[in-house]
Amino acid sequence: MRRVAVVGVGHSKFGRRDDVNLGELAFESIKPALEDAGLAPEDIPFLVVGNGGFCEETLPAVAIADYAELYNAELLRVEAACATSSAALSMAYNAVASGKVDVAMAVGCEKMTELDTPYIVELIGRAGFFFWEFQHFGLTFPGYYALHATAYLNQYGASEEHLAMVAVKNHKYAATNPYAQFRQEITVEQVLKSPYIAWPLKLFDCCPITDGSATVILAAEEKAKKLTDTPVWIEAIEGCGGSANLSKRESFVGLKAAQVAAEKAFKKAKITPDKIDVANVHDCFTIAELMAMEDIGFCGRGEAYKLVEEGQTYIGGKIPINVDGGLKAKGHPIGATGTSMIYSLTKQLRGEYIKSNQAPIKHGYALAHNVGGTGHYAYITILSRK
Amino acid sequence: MRRVAVVGVGHSKFGRRDDVNLGELAFESIKPALEDAGLAPEDIPFLVVGNGGFCEETLPAVAIADYAELYNAELLRVEAACATSSAALSMAYNAVASGKVDVAMAVGCEKMTELDTPYIVELIGRAGFFFWEFQHFGLTFPGYYALHATAYLNQYGASEEHLAMVAVKNHKYAATNPYAQFRQEITVEQVLKSPYIAWPLKLFDCCPITDGSATVILAAEEKAKKLTDTPVWIEAIEGCGGSANLSKRESFVGLKAAQVAAEKAFKKAKITPDKIDVANVHDCFTIAELMAMEDIGFCGRGEAYKLVEEGQTYIGGKIPINVDGGLKAKGHPIGATGTSMIYSLTKQLRGEYIKSNQAPIKHGYALAHNVGGTGHYAYITILSRK
Repeated sequence: MRRVAVVGVGHSKFGRRDDVNLGELAFESIKPALEDAGLAPEDIPFLVVGNGGFCEETLPAVAIADYAELYNAELLRVEAACATSSAALSMAYNAVASGKVDVAMAVGCEKMTELDTPYIVELIGRAGFFFWEFQHFGLTFPGYYALHATAYLNQYGASEEHLAMVAVKNHKYAATNPYAQFRQEITVEQVLKSPYIAWPLKLFDCCPITDGSATVILAAEEKAKKLTDTPVWIEAIEGCGGSANLSKRESFVGLKAAQVAAEKAFKKAKITPDKIDVANVHDCFTIAELMAMEDIGFCGRGEAYKLVEEGQTYIGGKIPINVDGGLKAKGHPIGATGTSMIYSLTKQLRGEYIKSNQAPIKHGYALAHNVGGTGHYAYITILSRK
Repeated sequence: MRRVAVVGVGHSKFGRRDDVNLGELAFESIKPALEDAGLAPEDIPFLVVGNGGFCEETLPAVAIADYAELYNAELLRVEAACATSSAALSMAYNAVASGKVDVAMAVGCEKMTELDTPYIVELIGRAGFFFWEFQHFGLTFPGYYALHATAYLNQYGASEEHLAMVAVKNHKYAATNPYAQFRQEITVEQVLKSPYIAWPLKLFDCCPITDGSATVILAAEEKAKKLTDTPVWIEAIEGCGGSANLSKRESFVGLKAAQVAAEKAFKKAKITPDKIDVANVHDCFTIAELMAMEDIGFCGRGEAYKLVEEGQTYIGGKIPINVDGGLKAKGHPIGATGTSMIYSLTKQLRGEYIKSNQAPIKHGYALAHNVGGTGHYAYITILSRK
């Protein structure tokens, strides 16, 4: 396998984006990514678009390629629920690592608000185990994660305050991220007083519905060294699927697919979790951030909420997590979340992130943890600046 | 790049499949493919599902993986309109060629009839250039290909009879293919008398709406040689995108994306079109088969209809095409068509296809041409038994 580096990244403003169509929204991240890499549209021979299908276009990848005039490329769309653009990045990585192409682009883009909110909620609910759990039991997505939260709080003695602390941290960092959807700080009291969505999860424990895009350009080693002085290497990108059927789960305090993907990724990168300087994890709900920390191995089972209580997930702590605002406050445009994580971590490893949100880089590694559904898909990406 | 071989193929019955759900339909091709390769579900570390989204499931890949108990794999869904499962195969190929995995499975599956016919027609129509051509002009898919047909007939002096001859051939071979949707022969007169859908295309010039699945298992060279005595090698799989916007097309008598993909594929495989013993091309409408023959380079521009008139595309002719019935008569389950082509061609190269439909294998090469939209996507795959 050839070594592969991130050589260009771009990011759009996240939020409700009635001002642009799908192609325009994607272009907001494609253009800066091309500029970052010093490349033109005709230099891209492989284009994979991550889009979860939350839009009016039947062929979103075509609309996006067309607007950006990316015509020379092998083209496809990838979907892996909320891990969609991590899967897209994985396909771009394979295309370069195999030697098929020297450069590849992964665009994550979702314009969720093109659909009505009740239909979005239905589509996301169907992303569980449609046949039994949605159709017969009526489970929607906050309900799924509420099952995980009740199991976690009960098993380890964590409290609703601990969940609230996750939201407070992520809002703090979103407040200084110009691309974030929610740019205001909140307090633990505000979270605790917000209305219940699915006990014990309240409004401020949940990520929003978001429009947005993020683009990553990859290149093979030789090409990367010509294009940039600050290549960020993909040490590993590993995925794993999991059953959609809750009755087949062995445990509700973690996601097996994420555990397997993390084990594979650390093995491939030949490092241990303590070497990660900064991480983005899939905090679609606050409980998901706690489970992610334990699934990755940043701490033992039942210990994540203690790290949160100690402030160890802030910049300056043991492991800064979601210091771009996370899904919770930066926003969660389904198909763009994976590449958005890679945007933030690439900037972190280059040492050129927003000053207030820049984590200290000691070992030179960063990790992205991106989950689809309730563990139906999981992708772990380990980046390095070495 | 490592050499990659097809080591297992499976195919479901195509047609209106009210008798099965999506997972069951996919399993009809997954099970025989695993048996063909001598592998178990736990042997598959990479699973890419081709599905165009014509179903009630938000996450069709998860429903399919779950039913087949394919839990250990990196999982994702791929969409490239009607070229969906060729794109899926390309991703499986890259994963193996790169050295990431030794074995990968591409499942194409579509259960179109879960949706109402008017909604299917709308979704397919949106797959053109949604904003202008569908929304403002009301173009549906037969209309798009009718534009190509009128240009072709006008430019080269071909007639509606020539289009009909394509349908007659494809029905003839579908009649002996137990997996085909339409298993009856038809005559040129029947085609000519069938009602116009979009002039000059008539009912029997159009492929049907279909449910079905087809699965292909790939392995790296060393692994392939352990698994089978009849590996079928992927000499090239190349894709290209194209504008959805008809006003940006230079010509209407061919599809540029297919031409570029074919050029790339022949260059990679280091052969010329005359070395192909048997081909499957994307005959969503009869005119598409003529354009495909010229885009691939089986003949010069404006010559395809003459080859058809001479019967050169039948078994025994210069280049047997769609001798499994093609999209036209075997059926066209959007996301399954690409892998269905690979199923037929693998069986052909092994010399174990349906006796009446087996083409003579002289040079040992076969080609699949799979188009998405009206040339928004194109994939060309060249297989060999060498």
